[in-house]
Amino acid sequence: MQTTKTLPPMSCLIIIGNEILSGRTQDKNIQFIAAGLNEIGIKLAEVRVIPDITQTIINTVKSCSEAFDYVFTTGGIGPTHDDITSAAIAQAFSTPLERNKEAEAILEKHYGRENLNTARLKMAEIPKGSRLIYNPVSAAPGFIIKNIYIMAGVPSIMQAMFDNIKGELRGGAKTLSKTISVYLTEGNLADGLTNIQNNFSDVEIGSYPFIKNQKLGTSLVCRATDPELLSKCYGELKNFLLGFNVEIDEEE
Amino acid sequence: MQTTKTLPPMSCLIIIGNEILSGRTQDKNIQFIAAGLNEIGIKLAEVRVIPDITQTIINTVKSCSEAFDYVFTTGGIGPTHDDITSAAIAQAFSTPLERNKEAEAILEKHYGRENLNTARLKMAEIPKGSRLIYNPVSAAPGFIIKNIYIMAGVPSIMQAMFDNIKGELRGGAKTLSKTISVYLTEGNLADGLTNIQNNFSDVEIGSYPFIKNQKLGTSLVCRATDPELLSKCYGELKNFLLGFNVEIDEEE
Repeated sequence: MQTTKTLPPMSCLIIIGNEILSGRTQDKNIQFIAAGLNEIGIKLAEVRVIPDITQTIINTVKSCSEAFDYVFTTGGIGPTHDDITSAAIAQAFSTPLERNKEAEAILEKHYGRENLNTARLKMAEIPKGSRLIYNPVSAAPGFIIKNIYIMAGVPSIMQAMFDNIKGELRGGAKTLSKTISVYLTEGNLADGLTNIQNNFSDVEIGSYPFIKNQKLGTSLVCRATDPELLSKCYGELKNFLLGFNVEIDEEE
Repeated sequence: MQTTKTLPPMSCLIIIGNEILSGRTQDKNIQFIAAGLNEIGIKLAEVRVIPDITQTIINTVKSCSEAFDYVFTTGGIGPTHDDITSAAIAQAFSTPLERNKEAEAILEKHYGRENLNTARLKMAEIPKGSRLIYNPVSAAPGFIIKNIYIMAGVPSIMQAMFDNIKGELRGGAKTLSKTISVYLTEGNLADGLTNIQNNFSDVEIGSYPFIKNQKLGTSLVCRATDPELLSKCYGELKNFLLGFNVEIDEEE
């Protein structure tokens, strides 16, 4: 009997932000989105961090929209002069920006009509035909056009937006993982690992050296969609490591 | 008199690592390299995080090597089955992998001949014609081929390698920055900022909302290579903010 493997949907995250590229800001969005997508069975296949330059945004969004099932962007949807994501995305798909009535109503409710100045209204200028992503933190919404989910760059706002879209994303089988760590260096383990990897081609075994308390160690991560296969591979790996007679540390 | 502006060298960082894309590991390499390049006047123009897939590494490294002055990679140069960076880069440039004598001597000194097994010797297999990047933390070197600097993924090792290559990288004028923060939202500031940005086209003014102690605020970052221009722009920005009569917080 032959089993057909269905590949999970593939996605790309585009971080739009000079502040990451200059080293001013430590990125906190990649890991949150990566883990969130992993949970629902969507593979994060690539991340790009790009500057606030219109043409770069256009080129990157267009090529990623074609290459991946889902594209997520963070950053550049605020009211200031350097917030150019919405306009660039409109341009990328030759779609006009238009004042989104629902977004305007949300902003009016949040700020009050008297404080809804031109700058803030810019946050309601969204490519025609987009759907909104609601923002419970600071009101101004993100939006969805084609297969692209445009979110804020501030981590707490992005996280709330991502939680709001998670329900509509269609994932494949969830990738499960089991991790085991030992204070042995990769060089001691490599041959045995290769053998186990060769026995389990549908499990991805990752080997990650670490330094903790000035000691070198290796974390081994098994990843697979099939729980039985994962458990079998992990069992073999654990047996292999027990052979070294050193302390092992297991985690889900 | 006309002044000619010289653009700084442009660079790209390629993070090779399934562990970042799965959300298992929080990246710590982007900010370190971004800040380090910024210090020596090299612009980090793009970051890509890609999986441990040979063809993806080949395609990404080739296109980035053509598009940028400098390319930096992290990850995938260890001794295990999932360390495929060196082989992929050799393939990308149709260069054979060869046992690098100097790298072998370094590994032999570090591990002792008796512990220098096949797996560890793999770390001396480097594309022909490469120069080594020394690794004071765990011995196994990175390498340089064409305009590509191949480094380890473990942050402490990568950092030591980066410090070792910094001296040979040729930067342009260093980008200086000054930051000022206020507890005002971007919507209050946007129009004034646009005016100041229009007056100083050679200064990049970035506006970054933040949430601290449950209060919304905005950090404004001025970046320029010319210290006088930077100081003038910053002065105008500070005056503008003082007009709001709220507390301001300045940092270099």
